[in-house]
Amino acid sequence: MVTHLAKQENPSAGQKQHSHVVKFGVIGYGYWGPNVVRNLNQLEETDVLAVCDKSPAARRRLQKAYPHVKISSNATDLICSPEIDAVAVVTPVWTHYELAKAALENGKHIFVEKPFTSNLAQAEELIELAAKKNLKVMVDHTFLFTGAVRKIRQLLDEDALGSLYYYDSMRVNLGLFQHDVNVIWDLAPHDLSIMDYLIRETPEAIVATGQTHLNGCEDVAFITLYFPDKIIAHLNVNWLSPVKVRTTLIGGEKKMLVWNDLEVDEKIKVYDKGVSVTTREGLYNLLVNYRSGDMWAPQIEQVEALHQELAYFVDCITRDTTMINDGHAGLRVVKMLEAASESLRQRGALVYL
Amino acid sequence: MVTHLAKQENPSAGQKQHSHVVKFGVIGYGYWGPNVVRNLNQLEETDVLAVCDKSPAARRRLQKAYPHVKISSNATDLICSPEIDAVAVVTPVWTHYELAKAALENGKHIFVEKPFTSNLAQAEELIELAAKKNLKVMVDHTFLFTGAVRKIRQLLDEDALGSLYYYDSMRVNLGLFQHDVNVIWDLAPHDLSIMDYLIRETPEAIVATGQTHLNGCEDVAFITLYFPDKIIAHLNVNWLSPVKVRTTLIGGEKKMLVWNDLEVDEKIKVYDKGVSVTTREGLYNLLVNYRSGDMWAPQIEQVEALHQELAYFVDCITRDTTMINDGHAGLRVVKMLEAASESLRQRGALVYL
Amino acid sequence: MVTHLAKQENPSAGQKQHSHVVKFGVIGYGYWGPNVVRNLNQLEETDVLAVCDKSPAARRRLQKAYPHVKISSNATDLICSPEIDAVAVVTPVWTHYELAKAALENGKHIFVEKPFTSNLAQAEELIELAAKKNLKVMVDHTFLFTGAVRKIRQLLDEDALGSLYYYDSMRVNLGLFQHDVNVIWDLAPHDLSIMDYLIRETPEAIVATGQTHLNGCEDVAFITLYFPDKIIAHLNVNWLSPVKVRTTLIGGEKKMLVWNDLEVDEKIKVYDKGVSVTTREGLYNLLVNYRSGDMWAPQIEQVEALHQELAYFVDCITRDTTMINDGHAGLRVVKMLEAASESLRQRGALVYL
Amino acid sequence: MVTHLAKQENPSAGQKQHSHVVKFGVIGYGYWGPNVVRNLNQLEETDVLAVCDKSPAARRRLQKAYPHVKISSNATDLICSPEIDAVAVVTPVWTHYELAKAALENGKHIFVEKPFTSNLAQAEELIELAAKKNLKVMVDHTFLFTGAVRKIRQLLDEDALGSLYYYDSMRVNLGLFQHDVNVIWDLAPHDLSIMDYLIRETPEAIVATGQTHLNGCEDVAFITLYFPDKIIAHLNVNWLSPVKVRTTLIGGEKKMLVWNDLEVDEKIKVYDKGVSVTTREGLYNLLVNYRSGDMWAPQIEQVEALHQELAYFVDCITRDTTMINDGHAGLRVVKMLEAASESLRQRGALVYL
Repeated sequence: MVTHLAKQENPSAGQKQHSHVVKFGVIGYGYWGPNVVRNLNQLEETDVLAVCDKSPAARRRLQKAYPHVKISSNATDLICSPEIDAVAVVTPVWTHYELAKAALENGKHIFVEKPFTSNLAQAEELIELAAKKNLKVMVDHTFLFTGAVRKIRQLLDEDALGSLYYYDSMRVNLGLFQHDVNVIWDLAPHDLSIMDYLIRETPEAIVATGQTHLNGCEDVAFITLYFPDKIIAHLNVNWLSPVKVRTTLIGGEKKMLVWNDLEVDEKIKVYDKGVSVTTREGLYNLLVNYRSGDMWAPQIEQVEALHQELAYFVDCITRDTTMINDGHAGLRVVKMLEAASESLRQRGALVYL
Repeated sequence: MVTHLAKQENPSAGQKQHSHVVKFGVIGYGYWGPNVVRNLNQLEETDVLAVCDKSPAARRRLQKAYPHVKISSNATDLICSPEIDAVAVVTPVWTHYELAKAALENGKHIFVEKPFTSNLAQAEELIELAAKKNLKVMVDHTFLFTGAVRKIRQLLDEDALGSLYYYDSMRVNLGLFQHDVNVIWDLAPHDLSIMDYLIRETPEAIVATGQTHLNGCEDVAFITLYFPDKIIAHLNVNWLSPVKVRTTLIGGEKKMLVWNDLEVDEKIKVYDKGVSVTTREGLYNLLVNYRSGDMWAPQIEQVEALHQELAYFVDCITRDTTMINDGHAGLRVVKMLEAASESLRQRGALVYL
Repeated sequence: MVTHLAKQENPSAGQKQHSHVVKFGVIGYGYWGPNVVRNLNQLEETDVLAVCDKSPAARRRLQKAYPHVKISSNATDLICSPEIDAVAVVTPVWTHYELAKAALENGKHIFVEKPFTSNLAQAEELIELAAKKNLKVMVDHTFLFTGAVRKIRQLLDEDALGSLYYYDSMRVNLGLFQHDVNVIWDLAPHDLSIMDYLIRETPEAIVATGQTHLNGCEDVAFITLYFPDKIIAHLNVNWLSPVKVRTTLIGGEKKMLVWNDLEVDEKIKVYDKGVSVTTREGLYNLLVNYRSGDMWAPQIEQVEALHQELAYFVDCITRDTTMINDGHAGLRVVKMLEAASESLRQRGALVYL
Repeated sequence: MVTHLAKQENPSAGQKQHSHVVKFGVIGYGYWGPNVVRNLNQLEETDVLAVCDKSPAARRRLQKAYPHVKISSNATDLICSPEIDAVAVVTPVWTHYELAKAALENGKHIFVEKPFTSNLAQAEELIELAAKKNLKVMVDHTFLFTGAVRKIRQLLDEDALGSLYYYDSMRVNLGLFQHDVNVIWDLAPHDLSIMDYLIRETPEAIVATGQTHLNGCEDVAFITLYFPDKIIAHLNVNWLSPVKVRTTLIGGEKKMLVWNDLEVDEKIKVYDKGVSVTTREGLYNLLVNYRSGDMWAPQIEQVEALHQELAYFVDCITRDTTMINDGHAGLRVVKMLEAASESLRQRGALVYL
């Protein structure tokens, strides 16, 4: 890759130079694509050379906003262009595998929308291909780059919460964004990728329940994940909610935490609350001690997560380092999604991972 | 029963007379008992003659607040007293059956704390005994008498929401109120009794997951109930939450509703929001239509639910009418609790009712 | 006073004895009276011997709730009763002076509803009379005994906020509780007594604006108080607000604080936020530095303020100590109310105190 | 004006043509300028030909985002360019008069940031000059184009609230955005322009109080405006608040309204609440009737106000129609700001307009 080699040839260069800029092609300019293009256009380390989308309306919007970018209706030119270093795949999940594979085969690093692929086999194949070609795969688990998730991760790293008891997330709103996947494949990847990053354990088994009301896909679903050490996780995802909720409770032995992502200023509240139970010998009754103290809302860095993530992508490419949201992270999420789907089909059967 | 007969002998009496007053004995003056005693003391149609509690501290508080009431340490006198018409059993669930049975056998109507009994067989036996003795059984499903639940019931009766899609309740806080039962038996009876009253269908099957962290009983649990006609219900109950949440989402075809019981003034918000899906012949894509309109918060009657419930109890006794929260309603809740416990033991197995 | 002497004669008595109980007569059983009677009935150190109210309905409610208390329709018996040690005056403000004066003349300590009196002269006379008779006067500035105000006072005592910049309170709701006084005399006494306790300075001047819409008294008013050292205070009181607001902002050099009294759990939030301004020599521009850090919600003691206040009243009587909410505190509030009224009449003229 | 004439010459043109596009020069690319440029770039009816800013950093950001736009460090070229139809003045208030005057003299329509000018005389001169030159002046009272203000205006037009009692706004946050003006000139123009649009009356007199703590300008201020017919308005503006508040209460005879601009979905809540007072002949007491009914949150159009405003500007230029936020509206706001400043200097003196 040109950028990378340029860097190696000139390792003493302290300042960013034009030759280090990673040149992107972006496939898909629908709901999320414009954010990817805008950030790649703003970052000093990146340039957007080409964007493609099948929709003429999308291409017109592109033309007005970015008159200097090459716009096309199909992905082939962009994937084959020798000028392009990396391809961002911002399209529906069922198209990821083919587009990502073609990009890798043409020697491009790939940035792929979540969920990574439609199934485990595709994820494995892409990881293997990238490894063989020595290319980077980043799955767009944007939330890992928010100030909130980074702060929670920091609190867990400092053992501020103590041993974890539970992770309980509610992610509901009105919206059937896609009709090729159910609500689990649409909304749960966010929570599963965050949990994967925060809990750092693989769940042992999954139970999922849900119901289909409108279009043949489940629009309401509830997922329980059993982790080792009695950690239990629960996700509530719903496309038919009149209100938008983005709230996660995390309970630990020492402290408990509420993350409300819709709050502007106090997204995370840490509660000095807890319960301890002791048993006196010979006594029938347990002694329950509640601890209820102050609440504390740490300041959260206010940055655009996608901006951070794309800068990190470029940095990992340039320095050839491992990513927190690489293909393996993407694969773990796909694996949980598959297990949840299997359990859902069996109306809540326990599915081991 | 004196009160009842007096009424029948004097059916033309339009006004309340002293002879109609229902005389109560109350067993238990712990957490909830003081509210029962206070309301029975305030109501014109009732009098509290005697209260018993094993705790000397509870009896001292009683003495200071109600110097004119007969106070004792055990229930026998109260249950056997010929002056007493009805007995309120406000004690832990494992004592309900014996106390309620003794009261019925002594010819007293009974008002029993929820959940009705520890198992289905006990509930069936008490219902049968009461029927034989022609006595009333009320299970203290207090929430049915709140302004909020009555308003939701009215909206459903008017078909304001259309066909129901889901009922999703979150009832979490910090607190292990009892250590003889798990969080399902402690918190879910509220939701199950409300659902039973609002949905008016029997669930077909239940899936429950959860985890035990502290004292041998599950302190976090998630219950899914499959109802006929694709209605799905979900309960999230948790004793280890740093924040108190009492929120229920109800989704319907025409409208959707959020009930936040912790709101002082706007407990219920009705959203003119919805989704409809149409399929055009020959088209691959579904057409999804969102409807997003005004929100409306109906005024809710501000009354103390327990006051309403006890007045209704007296009224049903006096007029010999059927109650919405009679022994059968109590039994249905116990049946769902048993099924949820069974599923929980099997880590989420589908249990049919 | 019997109680007090008894204590002095028996100073070694470590335990509360019946002879120390302060015996109360309560005048007024309308909106607030029932709370005073309930607390006096619950406290171990007090007994309610007699209550009077002109309303037959109020007396009926009294009879049902407190069958053992002496109930009457006028205050004279109660004020003259030799058995009574202290009189609580829980009546409209225009009756305070006469009732309080009669009680003091009959050797009773007095607990008087806020505002203390209708004007400064009355307040001065009552203070003088009580001093001459060696009796205690407490003005019911209940808020000083809430966990929230005590916590704020503690933070100020620790200089946690630094020099104060402003105190800004909003106290609005729907309600014309009294039509003999305007909204300032009805709602502002709360804020003025709290400010008097927290800021501990006398304002230099007051500006008040407002408007009368319905019944000849101002129902909306805005008060600015200029304190020494550039502290500015502002009160927004309104009887015609569709929503209830009870929020106070306190800005200081080091930290800033928001007190939302309608919050159940997190009434006080302390923000590590601030601004500092420096001027570089010879530079046109000021350098503004913002500091934005964590937020912290200290745990607040959950107690009934009136309970605490009445226990403190008895304690101050028994130990003959000075009260934070004595007649002088009551007088200071009345003085500010008078100045605000004068400014209001002149549509915002600056009135010096 | 070229654009306008082109339209007249070709009145049957149903579709937008390139010749109708209004060509803009924008002066100032600091805090607000980027939003103006972005919207002008997106609108089909407008084009941004040139942008100037004194800051090299601002120009670099411009260059990256809009490589096709002419960028310069001073305004002269832009103001004199014959290709430019309209100039947006997005600079500090003390520069408005000179820049706007130069633009008008060069035959450009002007879009001027609020507040219009530093004093009344400047505003009058600009209005006169524009009239003479037959050019349009729009003052950027952006809030008039929000869904919320438009909905409130609609409710008032329908007389949904009845006669107005009061308008009470709180606009506080942490921030000294400008140090050449005080908090009134910085924050109050928003409220004054909204009030001017909604109440449609000129206030009779103004009282303002406030205090200076940090940099020689008042950072906390409270303004009361006396309108005819007993309408009273009140603004609370504060640069030293730890929390951001953007809430307006509007009380009317029939209904009352709360507008919380920080709410995402339910910005406006209309309360069916009210008070009426009747006096029975010969009776001392007034009869106060409270009405408390449902709350209703009308759906608010979700649009970017600045987008709407700029489209409206172009439309008013093209069709030569009068604007709701023309120079006269700007002048009225400046007049109120001057009166408030005068009152503030005199510590709350009543200043007639």
